[in-house]
Amino acid sequence: MGKNLLVIHGGGPTAVMNSSLFGAVTEAQKSNAVLRIYGARNGTGGVLREAFVELSEEPLKRLELLLRTPGSAIGTSRDPLQQEDYIKMAKILERNQIAYVLFNGGNGTMDTCGKLYEVCKERGFDINIVGIPKTMDNDIAVTDHSPGYGSAARYFAQSVREVCMDVKSLPIHVVVIEASGRNAGWVAAASAMASENGEEGPDLIYLPERPFDEEQYISDVRALLKNKKGIVIVVSEGLRNREGTPIVEPVFKNERSVYFGDVSAYLANLVIQRLGYKARSEKPGLLARASIELQSSVDQREAKMAGQMACRAALAGESGKMVAFRRISTLPYKVEPFLVGIKEVMLYERTMPDSYINEKGNGVTKAFRDWCRPLLGDSFPEMISFL
Amino acid sequence: MGKNLLVIHGGGPTAVMNSSLFGAVTEAQKSNAVLRIYGARNGTGGVLREAFVELSEEPLKRLELLLRTPGSAIGTSRDPLQQEDYIKMAKILERNQIAYVLFNGGNGTMDTCGKLYEVCKERGFDINIVGIPKTMDNDIAVTDHSPGYGSAARYFAQSVREVCMDVKSLPIHVVVIEASGRNAGWVAAASAMASENGEEGPDLIYLPERPFDEEQYISDVRALLKNKKGIVIVVSEGLRNREGTPIVEPVFKNERSVYFGDVSAYLANLVIQRLGYKARSEKPGLLARASIELQSSVDQREAKMAGQMACRAALAGESGKMVAFRRISTLPYKVEPFLVGIKEVMLYERTMPDSYINEKGNGVTKAFRDWCRPLLGDSFPEMISFL
Repeated sequence: MGKNLLVIHGGGPTAVMNSSLFGAVTEAQKSNAVLRIYGARNGTGGVLREAFVELSEEPLKRLELLLRTPGSAIGTSRDPLQQEDYIKMAKILERNQIAYVLFNGGNGTMDTCGKLYEVCKERGFDINIVGIPKTMDNDIAVTDHSPGYGSAARYFAQSVREVCMDVKSLPIHVVVIEASGRNAGWVAAASAMASENGEEGPDLIYLPERPFDEEQYISDVRALLKNKKGIVIVVSEGLRNREGTPIVEPVFKNERSVYFGDVSAYLANLVIQRLGYKARSEKPGLLARASIELQSSVDQREAKMAGQMACRAALAGESGKMVAFRRISTLPYKVEPFLVGIKEVMLYERTMPDSYINEKGNGVTKAFRDWCRPLLGDSFPEMISFL
Repeated sequence: MGKNLLVIHGGGPTAVMNSSLFGAVTEAQKSNAVLRIYGARNGTGGVLREAFVELSEEPLKRLELLLRTPGSAIGTSRDPLQQEDYIKMAKILERNQIAYVLFNGGNGTMDTCGKLYEVCKERGFDINIVGIPKTMDNDIAVTDHSPGYGSAARYFAQSVREVCMDVKSLPIHVVVIEASGRNAGWVAAASAMASENGEEGPDLIYLPERPFDEEQYISDVRALLKNKKGIVIVVSEGLRNREGTPIVEPVFKNERSVYFGDVSAYLANLVIQRLGYKARSEKPGLLARASIELQSSVDQREAKMAGQMACRAALAGESGKMVAFRRISTLPYKVEPFLVGIKEVMLYERTMPDSYINEKGNGVTKAFRDWCRPLLGDSFPEMISFL
């Protein structure tokens, strides 16, 4: 007799979180070992309230809409969990005959996933728990990259590409664009791909992997303004000075989430005040992780694959593992999924290696560009300028 | 013997400014009356420097790229002009045998267009000057709407649609999204179209046409937070209080341009401070006018048509006129272009009529939605939620 399967989402959504859900659910629907397929309504909180969405009979036609729907179609959460919550969750899973649990999330979610696995193991519950990596920030360890990143990267590359065309045609200001990434600059770095076919890309990129020096910043901008009156700068939200203090104070803080003030607005104002030059800031924020129009086709495919693979692994008896990607080759692009122990990735935050950041700390290297390009999917539409 | 034609761009670009250029240039290429087709390199400044880009022989295949290129492919400017500049410009036009001038721009540009027309007329230069309307903010008078607006409207409707799905799946914050519009709220208002098929749209929209009352705002948000923990608010950059003072001071100002501080960040902080609830701000800024992925197909078509029509009108001997659109019907959507005297639109800023704003001043009416919908082009892709 079959058992039930549960998908739980954790943390902020990405443009392909639902694509992984699609992969997991359609794979589970194919299996005779799975009786019912549940989604936890709004993450672990939904499990604790036994609030499940049943997806067993959802027709493929409706499920396919997941591939082009941002957010999380079953909801997600950032609830902090206590030890007793894990025990309660384990009991609820057993009571609902849930033998397979797929956790779709980032570092924090993998921590939850690992802890639940431990609790279940200790209590002798026979539950197979497998993680599906998900982060727009690409900060999950071991895997070459995570689903969610490719789309955020494409969003920034294409958007900055478009802004560069705008600025080139009316070169009267410095534009500072803010990208997510508290400790890891992967998303900001991807904006370098804006200049794919010789078009202009961002002039400067500042990443949280390097201490931010305001004097150096002003000097970088001043030097550029000598030859160019339209300058595009991309910055990570998490920039910190040499002492490790964020250059802008957080405006909101609670147990699980910190929300920084606008680094882009601060740095645009700095240009206005120090150089007397017009500067504006852009902050797409949630737009960057919710954009379906700029979803990467490669990211969508891999997210789906990660969901399928996690489902297959759980059904095959794996537990306490996360699906990861290993890059076989970059040209042509080829990756293969594999399983990694959750303990190897739990709460570990992966930042950009030195080889991906230029010497001055205000841009990226060719090695980064080569690594990043395939993740963005299709080539960008050609543009024209007579200037 | 033929004469030359010159296209001049003025003011900030839109997602379809180049589509009008395409319409004008391809139309001019068809005419035997036109010898050479020029683009002024970076607006009126380019005319004064006699810096022209020649487009006479550009093949259709290359010109077609204009339809999907943001910014201005020949550059644009915001240069303030003096009376002597107009005289100098008139002389340069005559020297270059330019008999046809097409001015693509907004209110400020139409002012320039009208002044140049007057100077030429006074001096007895036989030059036909026709304006092509262009503004993402939709603040040009007389015309039903202006090319550039439909794409900005689609950008906000679709982006807010996506953000609403994100927020619905992780309802832990108030999100304040900033739209352009110093005195006219057309762009912010268009975000109401996010909820096209019964999906969730923005909860509150604040427009510059109504005085902004911080106490009312806090009370609006507090009331919503009783039933909902994820709230999406769209605000125009130009919000002013009852005394007419901008709620956030401009951070940069010169003769021709004012750049406001972030209204969205200010209002998000207000929620944090006054209600102790997590709030974040989003400010797409230039992204909204440069996005080609979210370009409206209707807007692109009409921009092209406006360029063609302006060219035809100039060749037919019209001068001192601007192309405008008259709406024949909304269902089915039908507009027809006509010519309006430049003097009727010069520097006049068109704001939203009362009938388009709800009684509380925090949303739009059905009349607005009906008027706005066709301008956004194709229907939005369907999405799915199991919540």
